[in-house]
Amino acid sequence: MNPHFAYKDNILMAEGVSLADIAAQVGTPAYVYSKAAFTAPLDAFADAFKDVPHLVCFAVKTSANLSLLRLVAEKGQGADIVSGGELYKSLKAGIAADKVVFSGVGKTGREMREALEAGIMMFNVESAEELALLSRVAGEMKKIAPVAMRLNPAVDPHTHPYVATGLKESKFGLDRETALGLYAQAARDPNVSVVGLSCHIGSQLTSIAPFLEAAAKLKGVAQELAGMGIQLKYFDMGGGLGVNYNDETPPALAEYAAGLKGLLRDVPGLTLVLEPGRYVSGPSGLLLTQVLYNKINGEKRFVVIDGAMNDLIRPGLYGSYHRVLPVCRTGAPEVTVDVVGPICESTDFLAKGRALPQVAGGDLLAVMDAGAYGFSMSSNYNARPRAAEALVDGDSFTVVKARETYADLVRGEDPSA
Amino acid sequence: MNPHFAYKDNILMAEGVSLADIAAQVGTPAYVYSKAAFTAPLDAFADAFKDVPHLVCFAVKTSANLSLLRLVAEKGQGADIVSGGELYKSLKAGIAADKVVFSGVGKTGREMREALEAGIMMFNVESAEELALLSRVAGEMKKIAPVAMRLNPAVDPHTHPYVATGLKESKFGLDRETALGLYAQAARDPNVSVVGLSCHIGSQLTSIAPFLEAAAKLKGVAQELAGMGIQLKYFDMGGGLGVNYNDETPPALAEYAAGLKGLLRDVPGLTLVLEPGRYVSGPSGLLLTQVLYNKINGEKRFVVIDGAMNDLIRPGLYGSYHRVLPVCRTGAPEVTVDVVGPICESTDFLAKGRALPQVAGGDLLAVMDAGAYGFSMSSNYNARPRAAEALVDGDSFTVVKARETYADLVRGEDPSA
Repeated sequence: MNPHFAYKDNILMAEGVSLADIAAQVGTPAYVYSKAAFTAPLDAFADAFKDVPHLVCFAVKTSANLSLLRLVAEKGQGADIVSGGELYKSLKAGIAADKVVFSGVGKTGREMREALEAGIMMFNVESAEELALLSRVAGEMKKIAPVAMRLNPAVDPHTHPYVATGLKESKFGLDRETALGLYAQAARDPNVSVVGLSCHIGSQLTSIAPFLEAAAKLKGVAQELAGMGIQLKYFDMGGGLGVNYNDETPPALAEYAAGLKGLLRDVPGLTLVLEPGRYVSGPSGLLLTQVLYNKINGEKRFVVIDGAMNDLIRPGLYGSYHRVLPVCRTGAPEVTVDVVGPICESTDFLAKGRALPQVAGGDLLAVMDAGAYGFSMSSNYNARPRAAEALVDGDSFTVVKARETYADLVRGEDPSA
Repeated sequence: MNPHFAYKDNILMAEGVSLADIAAQVGTPAYVYSKAAFTAPLDAFADAFKDVPHLVCFAVKTSANLSLLRLVAEKGQGADIVSGGELYKSLKAGIAADKVVFSGVGKTGREMREALEAGIMMFNVESAEELALLSRVAGEMKKIAPVAMRLNPAVDPHTHPYVATGLKESKFGLDRETALGLYAQAARDPNVSVVGLSCHIGSQLTSIAPFLEAAAKLKGVAQELAGMGIQLKYFDMGGGLGVNYNDETPPALAEYAAGLKGLLRDVPGLTLVLEPGRYVSGPSGLLLTQVLYNKINGEKRFVVIDGAMNDLIRPGLYGSYHRVLPVCRTGAPEVTVDVVGPICESTDFLAKGRALPQVAGGDLLAVMDAGAYGFSMSSNYNARPRAAEALVDGDSFTVVKARETYADLVRGEDPSA
């Protein structure tokens, strides 16, 4: 059980606040985050790597609310971004530009200009054509672009195919030979400055071995580059450390840190860059929903809730498991149900074949561990206004994103208005 | 080839407008719709059923832009909605409230009040608990709610499991016995008025047989109800007629219409309700994108474009096929590529293993038949502002939804601002 979301007198609390109170004041569906749940893993990362030069860059794509990003900024930590929009949000939240790493296979010229203007720490370059464009843009701006090559270490992360990014046939990264060629080219290019080497092998990994295998390959490349006279500053291991959604046993952070530090002990002068995302944000939030109806179709029982795939698409998209908990623990007998939303397609489910205490319309359910890839992937599908987001700190909470209204659904849409 | 999107002098046009011109003025990614492509199927439906009492209700969930809904309103046609947000948009576009059918398993009390206030044609009821709530809400408002039961005819539509809604184990509809029980109950309830019977067996069907099988079952129920003294007004067949994305051979509308009309010939007094969605909007729009990079990983070739899964999630979510066409036909040799977006996960692809003429950064590509479940499912994932939407009419076009800006990404999010 997540210590930040626990029952007290049979009511599920977010820290010291009853989720029933939040529902009454904010309505449902709503994302509810715990500040302590979000900051504890950030602190744990800082602690696990405190004896080596390192920088923790939170993976903004997992959860990009400004109020959460401000917590990252307050820790003096950085951001792993993948778009101009994420740069905008990170800077607005007060994250230092020189702690921002820009990843991703499809950076546009405009995004490069914005990042160079801001003065980010490093571009993780993904292709020869990207390096060429970055050099041209930097040259035009009379800036020098700090670059790392993103290596595709071709290790199997043993995770869902949709979140495996380090396989040979994926769109991500560069093979060793291509990367070395681009390093040689970059070293001669006055518009770029080689500062690092990066990888990201996937998401929600539940074993240390693939990380260490990838790190060993990166280390080999770093040593080869040193032989070519190219001295790196940043060794970016990406993110990917798994969390416990159901019955996974993700590796301990201490074990991950010890493995990486051991491997890099004999490579001095490197700053280790770590990009945790889900590990930080995943368990920090839940989706608070209300039961609308019980529905029985023959043998099948459905609990229809007011949260849907537009709010949380992970179950529909990846088949992901999220625990579903009643906000009020009544001791009612359990029944096996599918928990589904109001959206008109069979993809719209939050949980399937789940044993849940019997519920009635108006009861509240919490879809747990929804802080990562939850709100950040949400849409207006079925013309549903997006949920509110609330952040709990101790005994109080703040609405950190207002619930959308019907008027928001037509913004920019009415040329006659 | 879709006649509304055809090459002229080797440039792909939307009706009389070059897509290159639209990209230059609106930017990319952008959804581009053809007015003629959207209205032709609406007219075809009206024509195919003109000899029987009928109402065409466009399925708003497929494509909810106000300017498209206005085209429906101008035809005097109705709307199939699944949420209060879709009701809001339909009414705002000028669709008559008494031509609105409200479907869906999760209508909230608030949505019921809004629909009763507006005076919609019919609620398609999905469960006993929903009927109870609707009766209570109508009673409180001193209104009478017009209802149909949604029958689950338990026919196999032979389509993708995520869009099959008429199977016995799906969350949709009511079995025959439950429906008959609810009709008897509704007939005695002063707060509701029984007006119809409905079904919707799935989406993207490529054969007539499942429709006719479902219609026959509905007809049986209608006859049974007549025997109970319950006379129906509306016979709602839902939507589901497929379109040609790749090599499907969807049934001809004429064949569909002839089948339904033949089956219902001996059941007088019924108005046939038809809810086409994808059939109308699917081929009416495309996603216009720009090539960012070519990327070669070993044997694999990728074309990285500026459109992504946040813009069009169907390939990632359903494995859907969309034709990809170069806007400028150059005669370049074909290569086999994956067409992918900038988003940092392997789900982010638009096309896989596709033979495309060789392209370069800056070239434009059109992802075809993206008018249904395209923009309507789009999100801000990876903090990407959502695409613009443009509607072409003959030789001119209008931006019917402005591209989002970075400022839109933080709306409602900054309590300190």
